[in-house]
Amino acid sequence: MNENITTPSTRGPQEHDVRDQVIEAATRHFGHYGYEKTTVSDLAKAIGFSKAYIYKFFDSKQAIGEVICSNRLAMIMEIVNAAIDQAPTASEKLRRLFRSISEAGSDLFFHDRKLYDIAAVASRDQWPSVQAHELRIRAIIQQILVDGREAGEFERKTPLDEAANAIFLILRPYVNAAQLQYNLDTVSEAAAHLPALILRSLAP
Amino acid sequence: MNENITTPSTRGPQEHDVRDQVIEAATRHFGHYGYEKTTVSDLAKAIGFSKAYIYKFFDSKQAIGEVICSNRLAMIMEIVNAAIDQAPTASEKLRRLFRSISEAGSDLFFHDRKLYDIAAVASRDQWPSVQAHELRIRAIIQQILVDGREAGEFERKTPLDEAANAIFLILRPYVNAAQLQYNLDTVSEAAAHLPALILRSLAP
Repeated sequence: MNENITTPSTRGPQEHDVRDQVIEAATRHFGHYGYEKTTVSDLAKAIGFSKAYIYKFFDSKQAIGEVICSNRLAMIMEIVNAAIDQAPTASEKLRRLFRSISEAGSDLFFHDRKLYDIAAVASRDQWPSVQAHELRIRAIIQQILVDGREAGEFERKTPLDEAANAIFLILRPYVNAAQLQYNLDTVSEAAAHLPALILRSLAP
Repeated sequence: MNENITTPSTRGPQEHDVRDQVIEAATRHFGHYGYEKTTVSDLAKAIGFSKAYIYKFFDSKQAIGEVICSNRLAMIMEIVNAAIDQAPTASEKLRRLFRSISEAGSDLFFHDRKLYDIAAVASRDQWPSVQAHELRIRAIIQQILVDGREAGEFERKTPLDEAANAIFLILRPYVNAAQLQYNLDTVSEAAAHLPALILRSLAP
């Protein structure tokens, strides 16, 4: 019916550029005025596109928010991976995971508060981007456990899944933006003492 | 200037009754209509007192909310203490602390949602009642650690304060109503696996 509606896979480079342009402008706009109170009409007016034109590329405001959120979470994953990659031991990887995740989240809160608010909405409502992010963090924890068990650093009696889940539950209040805002006072204490407690629990 | 303003210590039994009456009615009213969107005027109208009369007993809406919140937190503490009191070992006390706290919080969420919302506001804004509650939970954790160390159940190398803090940080997302609402899906998993991990970390 509508020739303008295409699936992502058939979109040409030009359409891709327009999507990027909308995202870039929306990131600036939401970053200034906030996400929850801004409508697609406000956004369209501010960036000089028609509302209908924006809807050709994105189904909803949330679809735009999702891309912004995914981009930001990808940046956080880069920080986390960079922090972990060079760690000499599994124990040190675990410490760096806690530190980098909570620092990256706090930085976003203190330096980009309005974008943090998108992450908080996304976490509260468990958007797909947030679910995927949490699964990635969960997978990193599991890999650290496997490495540490193989290297003889960690005990092997506890079922791997149970140990990984419990550690993920301990880290989650610092991963999930909706919760992190209530834990900002204790972030640095948590980033030091939580991995220390976990490492005591992992002693062979 | 105003003869009707008295300090709490000089209030007679009759005034005490009126305070109780206001709290009882406010608990019902907020429990039905919610706390955040209800004004003292709404409340006064609903319970048949004048707004000025209510203000003779409470400085603000928050002062009323504080009493309701304290009452509810006292009920939760009773549940927690009853669960812990009869536990045969420090390890079992720790397990029951996690279970009772998270069950009491979830019960409030699922069965008294509007009163839960008061607790969530109180936790978000760290009302004195919530701070006192968190200190009480922190003190229970410390006492369990002392008991377990004396009984030879727990290691004694880690500074007591550090161990107690770390355990409190792990439990806090289930104590703090503002955070608990994001953890409802994993409450029962958390209540089983988190104390298990902590107990592994406490092994002598």
